[in-house]
Amino acid sequence: MRANKHKSSFDNRAPVLMTEGVLPSHTNALGTIFGGVVMSWIDIAGAIAAKRFARSAVVTVAIDYMHFIAPIRLGDTVLLHAAVTWAGKTSMETEVTVEAENSITGERRRSTLAYLTYVAVDNKGKPRKVPPLVPRDKQEKAKFEAAEKRRAQRLKWRSA
Amino acid sequence: MRANKHKSSFDNRAPVLMTEGVLPSHTNALGTIFGGVVMSWIDIAGAIAAKRFARSAVVTVAIDYMHFIAPIRLGDTVLLHAAVTWAGKTSMETEVTVEAENSITGERRRSTLAYLTYVAVDNKGKPRKVPPLVPRDKQEKAKFEAAEKRRAQRLKWRSA
Amino acid sequence: MRANKHKSSFDNRAPVLMTEGVLPSHTNALGTIFGGVVMSWIDIAGAIAAKRFARSAVVTVAIDYMHFIAPIRLGDTVLLHAAVTWAGKTSMETEVTVEAENSITGERRRSTLAYLTYVAVDNKGKPRKVPPLVPRDKQEKAKFEAAEKRRAQRLKWRSA
Amino acid sequence: MRANKHKSSFDNRAPVLMTEGVLPSHTNALGTIFGGVVMSWIDIAGAIAAKRFARSAVVTVAIDYMHFIAPIRLGDTVLLHAAVTWAGKTSMETEVTVEAENSITGERRRSTLAYLTYVAVDNKGKPRKVPPLVPRDKQEKAKFEAAEKRRAQRLKWRSA
Amino acid sequence: MRANKHKSSFDNRAPVLMTEGVLPSHTNALGTIFGGVVMSWIDIAGAIAAKRFARSAVVTVAIDYMHFIAPIRLGDTVLLHAAVTWAGKTSMETEVTVEAENSITGERRRSTLAYLTYVAVDNKGKPRKVPPLVPRDKQEKAKFEAAEKRRAQRLKWRSA
Amino acid sequence: MRANKHKSSFDNRAPVLMTEGVLPSHTNALGTIFGGVVMSWIDIAGAIAAKRFARSAVVTVAIDYMHFIAPIRLGDTVLLHAAVTWAGKTSMETEVTVEAENSITGERRRSTLAYLTYVAVDNKGKPRKVPPLVPRDKQEKAKFEAAEKRRAQRLKWRSA
Repeated sequence: MRANKHKSSFDNRAPVLMTEGVLPSHTNALGTIFGGVVMSWIDIAGAIAAKRFARSAVVTVAIDYMHFIAPIRLGDTVLLHAAVTWAGKTSMETEVTVEAENSITGERRRSTLAYLTYVAVDNKGKPRKVPPLVPRDKQEKAKFEAAEKRRAQRLKWRSA
Repeated sequence: MRANKHKSSFDNRAPVLMTEGVLPSHTNALGTIFGGVVMSWIDIAGAIAAKRFARSAVVTVAIDYMHFIAPIRLGDTVLLHAAVTWAGKTSMETEVTVEAENSITGERRRSTLAYLTYVAVDNKGKPRKVPPLVPRDKQEKAKFEAAEKRRAQRLKWRSA
Repeated sequence: MRANKHKSSFDNRAPVLMTEGVLPSHTNALGTIFGGVVMSWIDIAGAIAAKRFARSAVVTVAIDYMHFIAPIRLGDTVLLHAAVTWAGKTSMETEVTVEAENSITGERRRSTLAYLTYVAVDNKGKPRKVPPLVPRDKQEKAKFEAAEKRRAQRLKWRSA
Repeated sequence: MRANKHKSSFDNRAPVLMTEGVLPSHTNALGTIFGGVVMSWIDIAGAIAAKRFARSAVVTVAIDYMHFIAPIRLGDTVLLHAAVTWAGKTSMETEVTVEAENSITGERRRSTLAYLTYVAVDNKGKPRKVPPLVPRDKQEKAKFEAAEKRRAQRLKWRSA
Repeated sequence: MRANKHKSSFDNRAPVLMTEGVLPSHTNALGTIFGGVVMSWIDIAGAIAAKRFARSAVVTVAIDYMHFIAPIRLGDTVLLHAAVTWAGKTSMETEVTVEAENSITGERRRSTLAYLTYVAVDNKGKPRKVPPLVPRDKQEKAKFEAAEKRRAQRLKWRSA
Repeated sequence: MRANKHKSSFDNRAPVLMTEGVLPSHTNALGTIFGGVVMSWIDIAGAIAAKRFARSAVVTVAIDYMHFIAPIRLGDTVLLHAAVTWAGKTSMETEVTVEAENSITGERRRSTLAYLTYVAVDNKGKPRKVPPLVPRDKQEKAKFEAAEKRRAQRLKWRSA
């Protein structure tokens, strides 16, 4: 029971990589994946990315966009990639992409693209500050700006 | 094993009412409900509303808006309400609202509001036509129009 | 995270309405629903009805009757309805009915009828008083009396 | 992948012995076992006893009696014992007893007693004959007769 | 809610007997049992045997050998048998055997053989002493010695 | 429902990276992760690595070594890494390492190390050939040789 503890010097913006295999318990009556299962995996991946970035517990606040591009089938390998794209005072947006891989043929298909917002919370569930996210290149800048548009749109809809 | 079959004359726009109790197996490390569980319940409620409306199998295509207003706690009773708000050629939007009830004190809190799009599919997973949805009153008309805006916004983001 | 709290003026005898969709993870080796899944849904629905009535935590004490009339199949929509039929000093009986709906054809079949007894408990698990249940019409009176017979039968069997 | 097949000469009335450990995923908001979990374990144990007796697939038809005598707690070991008590033309009754063991102190408590009826079915779900059950001693005879009384009571209630 | 407590005089070396039925939720994409499910059942059975022996909470420390001899299929009845084979200062080895039974034909096949090591822990998760295990016959002695060899091999690999 | 199919030119020896978050539904009565959950994640990760390598369906044949070095706690992020270390005619060994990360403090602890053997199977479950695995550097050569020793040891134990 020897524990090899080490304070990792990890990049708090390192993406979350997640791999899952689709079992019958994940499927719907059509034999493809049940939407709720993909949503759960996306929420876990996004939450870990946000948690690492904020170095704090987080709760899911909103999904601004989730698009199921192609069905995922029984036996497929599912690959999720989550990264923080935007941070405000206490909330962050993460982008989660999902690919379905047939590990026998080697074929991969983009399957889902999602944007979720999380808020950092303290022990009592009160929102707490998160570090600023400074885009490091052109692509990150474009994602940051797209996130701001999604956020603005959501706030507009919410007040309606 | 006597079966009382009867072809119900149900209104295919009747809302789906769903009640759940929050068990430890539904919670996250903070003791509130795990986001993926709420998303699964929302997806089931929305899918049944769409299935009834289309009289067809359906698959989840998109979430355009999902807002977690207040946390749901261990022991809470969760009340979901799902109804179709818009229909196009082969796709439909459903609105799902979620309330958290403390069944001991009687207090209820609005917890989540979500808009999901489903597409009707045949046995081979190919999209198939759905009936038109004609708003029956002012409120339904407002929801129909709001759905069209969300859809337009999604298509714009998707092409970007 | 704005919470819209409101102390609802709900009727503590309002029925519990529950809707579920049958996924492969709910089935047995025959492709119909696994009995334990239906029993779990029935227990949740009955417990919420009892909890609301007693305004108290409750625990399951007995099942006096549960009859599976017709099988529920993969893809079916399951509709549960639970209501309190009888109350004693610390215990209550709930009636739970289950219908299976083919949401594509619109056909509904009565699937299960169950009577469960719950006891209200305090924080230490000790039984606590529940309000009296006064039948409001002829049908409720008949159900109340039938509940008393089931209870008498159970107590007789139990002492045997 | 060498398979050691052997046609066992098993007594088709040998009881089913089942042991489970109570994990947090099995509990309710009170920290004791969720009723639906016990019901599922009882249904599995009873169904296997009936399946062995009938040498046929079976489906659950009824619960005539299920009494929760003492709560089962997180960390407890649960011991189930199921045996066929009665057989008719196509249906069988099984008795399932449940004990909760604290495997650290060695204390055991009787926790649940249940009587469930199963029907043997063929590939199309049609009822099929089961062998006769001949009581082998006084105790089995008493159980057989008690089963007949429960059955008569259920049929009476069912026709009401 | 009458509890029939009785301090059982159980043999702390009595084997754990566990029976499970294979449902679709336990299968993989090939229609046989998902390996992780068998491993979970084996871990529960082994942990209860160790917990009884040590009269203490236990945690899994190692699997030294687990061999899947024959596949387990949907609908099979799974029979597990777990017993402690060796005990050291704070750790114990358990042997778990798994048989797959077709409860309709009566055929049984040896399916899995596994050796797992558990350590007894106190409330803080610190290792605590376990009673000595004295082999009672030739077979137990052989198993005890084989366990020592597996342990020696593991410690050698671990230090490498 | 536009599918972006592309035959990926993936390295069939690329490691499987898997990330999971520990929820209450994954824990045991001690508040740490239930061993069976880690085993399931390890089996999925290892099976995907083997499936990719063999370009074939695979089944789990054996666990030759699984060592739980440090406990994984509620709220931890779990990081799994799986890669094929050895291949024979129809079977492969995969090494799976598990790290537990506290995503708030950034601390990581090595938690589990496991070696599992899978066999490639065709549609009927019959073993089929896998490609040879040629070690590409010194470290891979050492792992290959260690795998051969584990295999030899297992075959020796198995024949005993």
